[in-house]
Amino acid sequence: MTQVSDSRLYESLATRIVEMIEGGALRLGDKVPSVRKISAQQNVSISTALHAYRVLENQGWIEARPQSGYYVRRTTPARPPEPQTTQPPPGSNSVAVSDLIRQAFHSASLSHMIQMGAAIGAPETFPDKQLRRAISTVMRDGEGVHGYDFGAGYLPLRVQIAQHAMSAGCTLSPDDIIVTTGCTEAINLCLRAVTKPGDTVVLESPTYYSVLQIIESLGLRALELPTNPREGISLDALEYVLEHDNVAACLLMPSFQNPLGHCMPDANKQRLVKMLRAREIPLIEDDVWGDTAFASTRPHAAKSCDDDGWVLYCSSFSKTVAPGYRIGWVAPGRWKKQVEYLKLVSSCSNASLPSRILAEFLENGGYNHHLRWLRRHSQQKMQHAIEGIKKYFPEGTCVTHPQGGVVLWVELPPDVDTLKLCNEALKLGISYAPGAIFSATKKYRNALRLYCGHHSDEQTQRALQTLGELFAR
Amino acid sequence: MTQVSDSRLYESLATRIVEMIEGGALRLGDKVPSVRKISAQQNVSISTALHAYRVLENQGWIEARPQSGYYVRRTTPARPPEPQTTQPPPGSNSVAVSDLIRQAFHSASLSHMIQMGAAIGAPETFPDKQLRRAISTVMRDGEGVHGYDFGAGYLPLRVQIAQHAMSAGCTLSPDDIIVTTGCTEAINLCLRAVTKPGDTVVLESPTYYSVLQIIESLGLRALELPTNPREGISLDALEYVLEHDNVAACLLMPSFQNPLGHCMPDANKQRLVKMLRAREIPLIEDDVWGDTAFASTRPHAAKSCDDDGWVLYCSSFSKTVAPGYRIGWVAPGRWKKQVEYLKLVSSCSNASLPSRILAEFLENGGYNHHLRWLRRHSQQKMQHAIEGIKKYFPEGTCVTHPQGGVVLWVELPPDVDTLKLCNEALKLGISYAPGAIFSATKKYRNALRLYCGHHSDEQTQRALQTLGELFAR
Repeated sequence: MTQVSDSRLYESLATRIVEMIEGGALRLGDKVPSVRKISAQQNVSISTALHAYRVLENQGWIEARPQSGYYVRRTTPARPPEPQTTQPPPGSNSVAVSDLIRQAFHSASLSHMIQMGAAIGAPETFPDKQLRRAISTVMRDGEGVHGYDFGAGYLPLRVQIAQHAMSAGCTLSPDDIIVTTGCTEAINLCLRAVTKPGDTVVLESPTYYSVLQIIESLGLRALELPTNPREGISLDALEYVLEHDNVAACLLMPSFQNPLGHCMPDANKQRLVKMLRAREIPLIEDDVWGDTAFASTRPHAAKSCDDDGWVLYCSSFSKTVAPGYRIGWVAPGRWKKQVEYLKLVSSCSNASLPSRILAEFLENGGYNHHLRWLRRHSQQKMQHAIEGIKKYFPEGTCVTHPQGGVVLWVELPPDVDTLKLCNEALKLGISYAPGAIFSATKKYRNALRLYCGHHSDEQTQRALQTLGELFAR
Repeated sequence: MTQVSDSRLYESLATRIVEMIEGGALRLGDKVPSVRKISAQQNVSISTALHAYRVLENQGWIEARPQSGYYVRRTTPARPPEPQTTQPPPGSNSVAVSDLIRQAFHSASLSHMIQMGAAIGAPETFPDKQLRRAISTVMRDGEGVHGYDFGAGYLPLRVQIAQHAMSAGCTLSPDDIIVTTGCTEAINLCLRAVTKPGDTVVLESPTYYSVLQIIESLGLRALELPTNPREGISLDALEYVLEHDNVAACLLMPSFQNPLGHCMPDANKQRLVKMLRAREIPLIEDDVWGDTAFASTRPHAAKSCDDDGWVLYCSSFSKTVAPGYRIGWVAPGRWKKQVEYLKLVSSCSNASLPSRILAEFLENGGYNHHLRWLRRHSQQKMQHAIEGIKKYFPEGTCVTHPQGGVVLWVELPPDVDTLKLCNEALKLGISYAPGAIFSATKKYRNALRLYCGHHSDEQTQRALQTLGELFAR
């Protein structure tokens, strides 16, 4: 709990200083109060103050001058404005995005491409050395590496997952958890457990295109709701829809949603869980990006407010350790039995060796240390990309300012058609994810999602310049 | 082709000699013609004759006396008679076997249990040393072990699979193949590609209970057909059904079916494929046991007769290498695009490391050598179990005589209820699979499936004695 309070303290301190700069109380070149002074003034620890200053430095607001202290470096935001809350058309839709997705990605895997389309981790962001050490340990022991892990999956892995879920505020026992083939399978199993074909599922808008594909493949209907790029889905809109529509489930990504990057405030998460609980509607929470928070502690999951099992909580290690292990998991609450049954029936069990390697890595490999590195890495890449967008994209461009994840949602002037330009961009050697594939409503034709985690700064700038020129034409 | 003919030659030679013994032409203690003599008489090679005699020796019909030759050791079959062709009631059924399965297996995983229920390979039958060597090689290279294998799966693995499929008579290219999470996922994907909920699928009767569970979970109907424990599904019955019912697909295990162990003769496989092709009905072929043939070459798959992609051919390495790798595969013929899409949507991709290990093992680890060992091992275990059943089970018991796989299907006198006695057996420390879970028609209450691959001979005999006493009560 100390850590959580600390995290909020340094964030709010940093925000206050930005407000002072934007409001004119601190002007360009002014000396910012010293770390010691501000910690006394604001009644925070030295380390909290230092942390806040480092964040501001990373964001380009202030700079450190040797032997002198911190000074205001700029007074206007270095980034374009954020998009408004989205306004998808009301009502549910059948989903047919697969052809669009195929169209958008059909030649995006060419090796010379600057790949800003799919949000897949770069090999250099995997903890290769630590994983290799874990493999050696597992093979030395050797127990069960070739056999089945029946039931809910390898117990020591579930123990580690339960321990780690504490950082998201969740109190889980290993028995609450089922290991799955990535978060993709977890979401499939949850949807199959709580819906039947033809049912309506509430989603954020825009929503991750693979989730739309799952919904399409299961014959479900999507009901997309207005979503704010900072706070997430509109709970008032949700309340209205729950009153007036027949909703079978909510499937949301409350922490660092892909593609908007928003993180629902704790109070919203609480209200969300309560609202759904009161109507006995299950919430499938996709928390696959939760651990990528740029702050030193991650936000609580909606699952942390779930008292009696109405939240089916899905996550994976594909974004933070290595996607190729295909290890996801789900704590399906009151649907434990059904999800376990569906897992057995649809893929029997997970591969044993990756489960053992990951359990060993989580126990002894320094996952938290790796997360700290990863989060600095991603934040820098994203900051850099935002600056490039500001520099190269047409006037009127908006971009999200996420506090986690590795993607940016960019809204261009309304006459730009990112789906049409997608193939032009591919010809120029750059892939991106066009906005249209993130909705069943045919919206977001002028938007795109950019994956920022992979390339050198120079490559990123070059790609953004090329895209900017393309979009300006 | 030479190998195939050889296999048929030694089998038919062995069968002829058994006929001579059973018919009285060779009596107890008689000297059997020498290998040299019979090879000349029957116009087969010395090695074929020797192979036939070894098989007969393994089966206990003849024995070798040093410096003297082979002698008849027994004149009556050491095994109970085979069951008749099954007669499931006509018509399709919705499937609801999951509760029965849970009931049958609910405490079957206790560690002190003599496990004759689930047909899972024993750790000592995995090629541990060779797999460890493959792991070292893969880690030394290290390329891509943590990343995604997008699309159809790791190419070098698909190359090995395509090469190996030649032994089943199939001409496949790596592009025809999609790697899956075990054969279980392959069958799920195929069924989802070719059917919709409410459709009818033709099955053997009895059929593997996990297949019934998949059918149940997808909301399909099962139409079970009479099945002969040597030759498989009745093609005349199938022809009749195809004329009179609305069949969406056939899902069969033509080679060493679980649980009956039958192997459809090549001519039947040809007729089957032709019959379905003419009506444009897809055949999902589950060949997961095909490589476990006791003969020195495996039978051809039905897929080998498929000229234009109406057979979706599924298999895995879970029964022959290691189940924990969860590597299955499918050659979905004309449904390639749909199956690849469903794989992407339901589990994204397979774990990378197991794919690389298996590809290396298949290329350099001696898979065929391992198969030869495995098939001798399984044949001996099965022969031993048949002898125990003959000795301990009640008068009137029938048992299959499979030529591959690791399971026996046992039919007890009609008044024995194996489902009821299942829990009694568990209390006595023995698990088996009661016949009722192998059908959606409520048949086979007096049957059971025994897994024979795991235990010491002494354990097996003790378990069979206990079961025999239980069934005789």
